[in-house]
Amino acid sequence: MTTVNAYVATAADQPLEKRAIERRELGPKDVLIDIKFAGICHSDIHTARNEWKGTTYPVVPGHEIAGIVEAVGSEVTAHKVGDRVGVGCFVDSCGECAACKNGDEQYCEKGVVQTYNSNTYEGEFTNGGYSEKVVVTEKFVLRIPEGVELDVAAPLLCAGITLYAPLKHWGAGPGKKVAIIGLGGLGHVGVKIAHALGAEVTVLSQTLNKEEDGKKFGADHYYATKDNDQLFSDHANEFDLIINTVSVNLPLDKYLRLLAVDGTLVELGVPTKPLEVAAFSLLANRRSLAGSMVGGIPLTQEMLDFCAEHHIGAEIEKIGADEINDAYDRVVDSDVRYRFVIDTATLAG
Amino acid sequence: MTTVNAYVATAADQPLEKRAIERRELGPKDVLIDIKFAGICHSDIHTARNEWKGTTYPVVPGHEIAGIVEAVGSEVTAHKVGDRVGVGCFVDSCGECAACKNGDEQYCEKGVVQTYNSNTYEGEFTNGGYSEKVVVTEKFVLRIPEGVELDVAAPLLCAGITLYAPLKHWGAGPGKKVAIIGLGGLGHVGVKIAHALGAEVTVLSQTLNKEEDGKKFGADHYYATKDNDQLFSDHANEFDLIINTVSVNLPLDKYLRLLAVDGTLVELGVPTKPLEVAAFSLLANRRSLAGSMVGGIPLTQEMLDFCAEHHIGAEIEKIGADEINDAYDRVVDSDVRYRFVIDTATLAG
Repeated sequence: MTTVNAYVATAADQPLEKRAIERRELGPKDVLIDIKFAGICHSDIHTARNEWKGTTYPVVPGHEIAGIVEAVGSEVTAHKVGDRVGVGCFVDSCGECAACKNGDEQYCEKGVVQTYNSNTYEGEFTNGGYSEKVVVTEKFVLRIPEGVELDVAAPLLCAGITLYAPLKHWGAGPGKKVAIIGLGGLGHVGVKIAHALGAEVTVLSQTLNKEEDGKKFGADHYYATKDNDQLFSDHANEFDLIINTVSVNLPLDKYLRLLAVDGTLVELGVPTKPLEVAAFSLLANRRSLAGSMVGGIPLTQEMLDFCAEHHIGAEIEKIGADEINDAYDRVVDSDVRYRFVIDTATLAG
Repeated sequence: MTTVNAYVATAADQPLEKRAIERRELGPKDVLIDIKFAGICHSDIHTARNEWKGTTYPVVPGHEIAGIVEAVGSEVTAHKVGDRVGVGCFVDSCGECAACKNGDEQYCEKGVVQTYNSNTYEGEFTNGGYSEKVVVTEKFVLRIPEGVELDVAAPLLCAGITLYAPLKHWGAGPGKKVAIIGLGGLGHVGVKIAHALGAEVTVLSQTLNKEEDGKKFGADHYYATKDNDQLFSDHANEFDLIINTVSVNLPLDKYLRLLAVDGTLVELGVPTKPLEVAAFSLLANRRSLAGSMVGGIPLTQEMLDFCAEHHIGAEIEKIGADEINDAYDRVVDSDVRYRFVIDTATLAG
């Protein structure tokens, strides 16, 4: 066992605090990662505050992990000491179901082992990336190629793949019109990736506050949705793909009507109330309302390679570990441009 | 103008009655069809009774039309006198928008001209198939190949294409597991087509009352959904495609959970209340909830060719025109196996 410093959620109503935790002995297929940076995802906050229920305390959040390989087990072949690597939302899966065999480990029928607040098949409770080091089985360790710095790469491990997966799955590329709802931690990475994929990209945001940023990230168009019924009639039947990065209940029928024939609106978040749509909004233009949840390991590697090639990283505010609790409040207030990343060097000592 | 007998809806609360109506002079691209059979679709009833509002009276319902070409205009090349032909849910479209050019006329941006209760671009009010003859522009007249009788072919023009389109679009075929919700006028044709396409077909019906029929039509499995939670857990994550032919508000989350990774649940009807789904039901397994509305002209022809090749017709109860009003009540009571077809010879005199 290795003892390392971490930032730990201890109860729903308590701030996270620094504590020592144990990492397991390196098994033959394990990789010991010296974590350099860990992104803060809104899911971390939901879990730390038990807003989705089911949180086991104490728990270390963090599933946007970037670091350097410090040691490898005797049978590891995919990674070697000194490699730049990342870990995303899950650290194991059954490997035998159809989903796993198809590289969609996130939909593993046995249930994927999440990077934190989960139990491995061997019964070990998982702790995430707000920590100095982590031990992960090699298959779930991704290569971070040169071309993207580790700090801006960290959020790609969740935010990046969460957007890349639906953009690829639903064919974003040249000749396709893609709209991204919301320009936050997820949306801004989506704009960058969709643009790099060659799609014509539109941001649909409540206001025009972030228009300049959006265009800088690659948006061709940027529209305010608030009090703007004209938008919804002017752009009816226009988009091939709309990706909703906003976890609130939107008036989905209005957005569905923006979709062309065979268009799809993809939900990435889980609003508190059920989604409501008129059947006719789907029948017209043979539209689909879909959901997508991160992405599998092969696609995550593809995404990292793609982002490195296109020099795509997240826009980040780098913080020390002692700023995590403030950062949580700011994420909840949407007061971050666009992702907090913890410099885990600040956990030392 | 040609005067012909028809069965006409005159008011929302009145039975249909026999009246003479006018058909337009044959234009150079028109086909005059001697109607032999007209299916009764639930949409006819909604329209006749003004349940969707927007009905203009008097109107002749009927968009499942099968007959014989009696005359053709001077420029008609696709059809000749004596041909076996059909007409479905629409009789014109703009021909210039992306949907039309792609053979998806039902999604015409200008608005398709429906077979009845619609206005042509020239301002003529359209009347449907409960009639002795109809004049339709050649592009919207389909060939009914030998291999399927005209009476059982009539319902294919709406029910058939309504099922064939989503089955083809979402890839029903060998190795795919398809479930059809409801074994009525739509569902029973869906079972036949899905089976002929090579899919493994399951019927999900409230009860097992029609199990024997369903299996005869080609279902591999037939399950009762009522008070059967076991079904929904035993078959979780199983189906690639579920087609809901039932126009009532189902507990969609239960049905969505039956879908495998990348599975789609397609709605064909328009229940009175909005559809409600938990976002997580879509995020898990990257599922889609979609809609589909009949099909375009090229696909309708493909469907008729396919059905003729596989000797697929609807199961029908043939009735005389004077039985239409009783038939309407029976359709509303789901008391038909499986489609009423009017023998339009009974309109003569």
